[in-house]
Amino acid sequence: MRDLSRHNRFLSINTATLRRERPPAEVVPAQDAAGIPGIGPGREQIQAIGIKGAARLIGDHGLTVSGVSRAGVFTAQGRSGLRQVVDDNRRAVDEAAGIGARCLVLIGGGLIPGSRDLADARKLFAEGLSALLPHARAANLPLAIEPLHPMYAADRACINTLAQANDLCDALGAGVGVVVDVYHTWWDPNLEREIARAGKRILAFHLSDWLVPTTDLLLDRGMMGDGVIDLPLIRSWMEAAGYRGPHEVEIFSERNWWKRDPDEVLATCVARHQTAC
Amino acid sequence: MRDLSRHNRFLSINTATLRRERPPAEVVPAQDAAGIPGIGPGREQIQAIGIKGAARLIGDHGLTVSGVSRAGVFTAQGRSGLRQVVDDNRRAVDEAAGIGARCLVLIGGGLIPGSRDLADARKLFAEGLSALLPHARAANLPLAIEPLHPMYAADRACINTLAQANDLCDALGAGVGVVVDVYHTWWDPNLEREIARAGKRILAFHLSDWLVPTTDLLLDRGMMGDGVIDLPLIRSWMEAAGYRGPHEVEIFSERNWWKRDPDEVLATCVARHQTAC
Repeated sequence: MRDLSRHNRFLSINTATLRRERPPAEVVPAQDAAGIPGIGPGREQIQAIGIKGAARLIGDHGLTVSGVSRAGVFTAQGRSGLRQVVDDNRRAVDEAAGIGARCLVLIGGGLIPGSRDLADARKLFAEGLSALLPHARAANLPLAIEPLHPMYAADRACINTLAQANDLCDALGAGVGVVVDVYHTWWDPNLEREIARAGKRILAFHLSDWLVPTTDLLLDRGMMGDGVIDLPLIRSWMEAAGYRGPHEVEIFSERNWWKRDPDEVLATCVARHQTAC
Repeated sequence: MRDLSRHNRFLSINTATLRRERPPAEVVPAQDAAGIPGIGPGREQIQAIGIKGAARLIGDHGLTVSGVSRAGVFTAQGRSGLRQVVDDNRRAVDEAAGIGARCLVLIGGGLIPGSRDLADARKLFAEGLSALLPHARAANLPLAIEPLHPMYAADRACINTLAQANDLCDALGAGVGVVVDVYHTWWDPNLEREIARAGKRILAFHLSDWLVPTTDLLLDRGMMGDGVIDLPLIRSWMEAAGYRGPHEVEIFSERNWWKRDPDEVLATCVARHQTAC
């Protein structure tokens, strides 16, 4: 396994980890100052200063963009609204490509509004992904399907296992890969097998931790080492599968980390990445 | 499919659905009065009046016991404490057999205290189940493995998919079956396949609904029809697999149903079972 204890070379921070709605002009220099070489910005942060502005800012500080969050959500407006959602996803591809991101992160979207048909939501996601793919290929921007935890199946993400994401990759071919996020997948009895199956398709690796107790379904993720996920074990599976990319820390934590000073959060990420991952 | 709209013949109520800690001497007559033929008591309710007392009370009212909740939890005291936990499970078998239950419901238990090794927790569950099985076979009392939602993997249940439960049944043979609970399994892309695979091993079917939003990981289950689960679809899979047993309503609802009068809750269960399932 790679030795993480002596440098931060593989570390990236998803900007949602910091107190919400910090502008990129603050976040990017702060990460640079903390010695963190990777960044995972949200679309809204790119949009706030424009693609060129974001590319310049990130480039000036020499950061790697481990991925852009989040696109996909092809179920949001039902089948009749798919074209609009795909159009918006094309803009997301342009934003991600425009700042040199390694991938664009796609989540499923929940059930189609007004429907209880989960299989149909999954079908619609596949249709949207398929419709988006030519544009992403033309932009040379890999699409990274991120399965989210089953507790989000209803309202956020109908793609809930790495097996589903791998099946979609099998069906669609080049230009599509997967994100492995420990928070969403750690419970999965097939995780080791599906990481091995994903192999070179793995485009990103997201880190946080599962707290016991977890007090909120969305906004109570833990800092690495504060929870129960065996992070080194999952990382060993990732490396066995050939993954050598960044480790992107993504923590939504209303009751703890979002209340703290961003510099403290970044320093903690650096320390925990060295000792707990 | 069976027609549920005209009678309550298949309906059972897990007593946890009613306001907490109602004594059996109140719950059993209330269910009988509401015309509900099945009951799923907790162990503590049997213990409160003794096995013979519970058997008499339930028998006097002519109720069917769809299952006894909950046993298993073989991980609770680690490997060194397994024997004690298995002993307690043997008492649970005796309680369930003593009141003529159709099955004893087993859940996984979470991670072993102090450990992050989920695979080891799963292994310990299998060891406990295997140790318990001879006693259950001798008592002619089927053990029903209930996979719980992946959001409980850390602290309640390391058995999280029906596939895992089916694998355990394959390994252990006669005397072990599964519970299908819509709340825990509705998101699973393999659910239809695994229900078909379970077939005659299905010992119980639990009903509630997934609310959007869900405000608490444990105590915010919905009444059938109030959430997003396609209950008739899952029931059609159950019947296609040959299941003809009771439908046990199990709703933990701190903010809503537990605050209401038990008679109102029972009447709502009856109505929703007829119209939403």
